[in-house]
Amino acid sequence: MSSCEFESLEKSLESHLPEAELVEVKRILYGKETLKLDLPAFAVEAASERNFELKAFKFDALQEQLRPPRRTRVGLVQHKIVLPTDAPVLEQINAIHSRVGEIVEVAAMCGVNIICFQETWTMPFAFCTREKEPWTEFAESAEEGNTTRFCQELAKKYNMVIISPILEREELHSKLWNSAVVISNSGNVLGKSRKNHIPRVGDFNESTYYMEGDTGHTVFQTQFGRIAVNICYGRHHPLNWFMYSMNGAEIIFNPSATVGALSEPMWPIEARNAAIANHCFTCAINRVGTEHFKNEFTSGDGRKAHHDFGHFYGSSYVAAPDGSRTPGLSRTQDGLLVVEMDLNLNRQVSDKWSFKMTGRYAEYAEKLTEAVAHDFKPKVIKE
Amino acid sequence: MSSCEFESLEKSLESHLPEAELVEVKRILYGKETLKLDLPAFAVEAASERNFELKAFKFDALQEQLRPPRRTRVGLVQHKIVLPTDAPVLEQINAIHSRVGEIVEVAAMCGVNIICFQETWTMPFAFCTREKEPWTEFAESAEEGNTTRFCQELAKKYNMVIISPILEREELHSKLWNSAVVISNSGNVLGKSRKNHIPRVGDFNESTYYMEGDTGHTVFQTQFGRIAVNICYGRHHPLNWFMYSMNGAEIIFNPSATVGALSEPMWPIEARNAAIANHCFTCAINRVGTEHFKNEFTSGDGRKAHHDFGHFYGSSYVAAPDGSRTPGLSRTQDGLLVVEMDLNLNRQVSDKWSFKMTGRYAEYAEKLTEAVAHDFKPKVIKE
Repeated sequence: MSSCEFESLEKSLESHLPEAELVEVKRILYGKETLKLDLPAFAVEAASERNFELKAFKFDALQEQLRPPRRTRVGLVQHKIVLPTDAPVLEQINAIHSRVGEIVEVAAMCGVNIICFQETWTMPFAFCTREKEPWTEFAESAEEGNTTRFCQELAKKYNMVIISPILEREELHSKLWNSAVVISNSGNVLGKSRKNHIPRVGDFNESTYYMEGDTGHTVFQTQFGRIAVNICYGRHHPLNWFMYSMNGAEIIFNPSATVGALSEPMWPIEARNAAIANHCFTCAINRVGTEHFKNEFTSGDGRKAHHDFGHFYGSSYVAAPDGSRTPGLSRTQDGLLVVEMDLNLNRQVSDKWSFKMTGRYAEYAEKLTEAVAHDFKPKVIKE
Repeated sequence: MSSCEFESLEKSLESHLPEAELVEVKRILYGKETLKLDLPAFAVEAASERNFELKAFKFDALQEQLRPPRRTRVGLVQHKIVLPTDAPVLEQINAIHSRVGEIVEVAAMCGVNIICFQETWTMPFAFCTREKEPWTEFAESAEEGNTTRFCQELAKKYNMVIISPILEREELHSKLWNSAVVISNSGNVLGKSRKNHIPRVGDFNESTYYMEGDTGHTVFQTQFGRIAVNICYGRHHPLNWFMYSMNGAEIIFNPSATVGALSEPMWPIEARNAAIANHCFTCAINRVGTEHFKNEFTSGDGRKAHHDFGHFYGSSYVAAPDGSRTPGLSRTQDGLLVVEMDLNLNRQVSDKWSFKMTGRYAEYAEKLTEAVAHDFKPKVIKE
């Protein structure tokens, strides 16, 4: 079995483990059981007709006396590119718009309030090639690009907040950015969040294309909760998640593009650790499939030149502040993960575990300030 | 099957999954396969006679041209208390010394260089009771207590660095602390590391007994590597792991005492996330078994008064900077986990992933300094 055929961890466990052991294994791996969420039959049917996986779960919270539940439904979309990577740029974009549009329509049938697409969702993840053309042509204005207009229409039509991670062109200053545009359910652009941490590893040659983001750790107050977007590589940086949380994020989305050989064992760990450490929900989204490029390229690892980046393993999931998580979407197919969460759970878990109060942050602010000085003396005891 | 009978996740998977799927499941769950380490037959036999589990693994690194391998062997000890909790204090301590002494002897047969015991290893984890007597009598001087002397003898005898987490009594200032004493292989006390973050959750009533540690993030330079000790609850705090790493720790030990109902799904996540995020090895150690107390106590959760804290689920493991990890020790038995690691792996992974360079720490120092002010204005965008 090759790793791009293996469909999912959960499916394998469920097929082979005896019931009593499966309960224990799932408890240890995933925490408190995530409840299944019932969806309308027509939504399930539409997903099946459109040939994408549809899974739905919910995280409950205790009923409080003074606060009503604050239930919100998020949608995570993972998808393959639609046309070959050497098709005309506009055709590639339009084909992806159309594909994701039909997934969003099903999300609307499922009552989704906030939807998030994968990193640079309108294009192949072509930064492995180090070619500037034609890939930089996929870049668009965050405020006025076609993709933003497309999302604004969907947002209004379905009364849905849309997080649209794109390759952003800032025409005025001749810059490219890796950005997520946040569009309110009113259809207005609320703002954007640029990728804070840029990788220099494997085929992730993104530092060739754009620089570290300058939008800090903005949180967006929407009708359905306070949200933030930590793009891809930022999930390896606990301080990045932390600062979104310090600005009040209740749900942190992590639209990503990552391949199995490099990162798969870290994937179930990092977003989930962030949900636990920050008393919030995190949503990890990865693209899926293998993308082929016309011109061969090397990967800086001694291998022969080749034409693809490896297998994007999907496996999108949602993690809750109590350490539980949903199963992942498939490793091989397009999919929509619908998750209902009661945001009251964040404060309930915080009141229980109190990481923010026991965190001694003022002391860390001082220590970190000292530690970043070039002449920092580490605290080391020798015999 | 009750959760204090379920022996281990790995054993369940290995018993039931077909070979080809097991490979994929293990890769996703545990990363690159951890190699088994061969041990001398007399060590294996001694462990079997002494009725504790002995497992051994190794993490290799690439052979470099300019640096020789820096292989070190660590030992993680998890054990039950030996006598009932109402036995005389000194008898309880001596019985545990004796039990752990025979485990350390086997560790020496296995060539262990650095060994770490569980949190407050000489006593039951009695803080659930909120009784001061007789539990505070277990507290000892870090520098001159019987337990430290016991460890000094072992350290010299076996040429082994010993990390001895105890309840510390600082007589001069009338204080108790939760501390780890670090004893060099010369037998000298190198220093101590006090628990930085004190829980207020479940039956962890430790804030009734001692305060937040004042030893910061000391790193100990030993003959076998630079080590640090992040005690128990500190594993929930990414900044705590991070500051040990900023001071140069190559291996961070996390001696703990935690029970299944509360923390088990977080256990495989947090120490491993810290190894990934900080390009270092982490060693998570939990005590094992169920401890009964003579006087009943309540848990602040509406349940009837009872006599035990729940099941300490063991499952001690080591995580590597490349995202891989060893299987865990048993959830139910005393055990010794021997792990050989080539410390060169840390820099190799750092050179590959570069989290420390892409981390933008100077900016986080500023942001965190702002965020801890009482009049901090979070960065929130509203429509």
